[in-house]
Amino acid sequence: MWQLYQFSLCPFSRKVRLVLGEKGVAHELVREYPWERRDEFIDLNPAGETPVLVDSEAGTTLIGSQPICEYFDETNAKMPMIHGDAALRAEIRRLTQWFDEKLFREVVEPLMHERMRKRLVSNASPDTRVLREAMRIGNGHLDYMDFLLDHRRWLAGAGLSLADFTAAAHLSVIDYLGALDWRGHKQTKDWYAVMKSRPAFRPLLGERMEVIVPPSHYDKVDF
Amino acid sequence: MWQLYQFSLCPFSRKVRLVLGEKGVAHELVREYPWERRDEFIDLNPAGETPVLVDSEAGTTLIGSQPICEYFDETNAKMPMIHGDAALRAEIRRLTQWFDEKLFREVVEPLMHERMRKRLVSNASPDTRVLREAMRIGNGHLDYMDFLLDHRRWLAGAGLSLADFTAAAHLSVIDYLGALDWRGHKQTKDWYAVMKSRPAFRPLLGERMEVIVPPSHYDKVDF
Repeated sequence: MWQLYQFSLCPFSRKVRLVLGEKGVAHELVREYPWERRDEFIDLNPAGETPVLVDSEAGTTLIGSQPICEYFDETNAKMPMIHGDAALRAEIRRLTQWFDEKLFREVVEPLMHERMRKRLVSNASPDTRVLREAMRIGNGHLDYMDFLLDHRRWLAGAGLSLADFTAAAHLSVIDYLGALDWRGHKQTKDWYAVMKSRPAFRPLLGERMEVIVPPSHYDKVDF
Repeated sequence: MWQLYQFSLCPFSRKVRLVLGEKGVAHELVREYPWERRDEFIDLNPAGETPVLVDSEAGTTLIGSQPICEYFDETNAKMPMIHGDAALRAEIRRLTQWFDEKLFREVVEPLMHERMRKRLVSNASPDTRVLREAMRIGNGHLDYMDFLLDHRRWLAGAGLSLADFTAAAHLSVIDYLGALDWRGHKQTKDWYAVMKSRPAFRPLLGERMEVIVPPSHYDKVDF
């Protein structure tokens, strides 16, 4: 049985959980807060970051959301995540990287720092200037997703792909932290409602992280 | 014919150039400084980052070093870059991401900012505190590579892979900027000497970026 080292508000863990759920891969969750830097976890992943997926019987350790998703897309044919011809696969990987790097660095990471880590580690107040700037840039990302969805059925093209699950994972963390403003973003809101209603998404939306409460619309498909 | 939008000291462009060279993919170089934010370039890649690879006759645009490398590994069998069973492929991708994200963010990016962008954009002096800290962390990365090469022939295992070319691309930029100190890192130094002597690496090492001069050992295989 796979064990997934993760924590509830880690967008990269959420991305892997969505993919494992869609592909029907059984796994147990192990809660890991990377900022605690547990020795046993650093031994598993010297980068000290979630997610890590371990099958101790088989002696397999998979590290990082993209290597894990590529692994299961290569070994499990259910719900292909990176599909189509080589050019479409490049577009799926481009957008996946866009959300994992650009959206994460510009929006998700500062929000997690201000609204989650400060609360958990030092009980300090968030810096409202940083929050406002992250929300302003987040709005630009929603504009870009609207633009994509004006031209395509799903984010990377005609088929549902890893780009959609990756974007939904990051947006769900932004939403949990109360920083998503859907006004003026009907296309992306409609797309996100469809993503939220997928069975693999439901367990994620039902979880709560200690001391941090999401807005009331967070887990509703009709929001 | 492919056109590669890149600049000489971009480590991600170097990674792609090494892979195209190893695989024998003909391409032209187009110099692009992403910080100039040319409208035509932003139209190609809304993230505004190099590298971008365009085949205008075929109407194909590939964006980002990892999607480009995966594309050619899927479509060109010469010198496989991500090879072996699914677990080894995950390890190759883990290390590739380690160098592209962790080594880049902690070492290469601050060095490029202090020693290249400040010089080109504002002619300001580098912040020696930032340089020292980047070199200190870079030394830790060399320790980790020594550890890997103590146990393995190449960085990800028994075979030369994308992890090696990615690491070499980033190290070559650090070296150009005069911030590599090989003392105490014999394993990685020997490995880098082998990487430098590959024919695909030679053209890169012969290039010079305007106004920034590398140390005299930079292009020598025996350094």
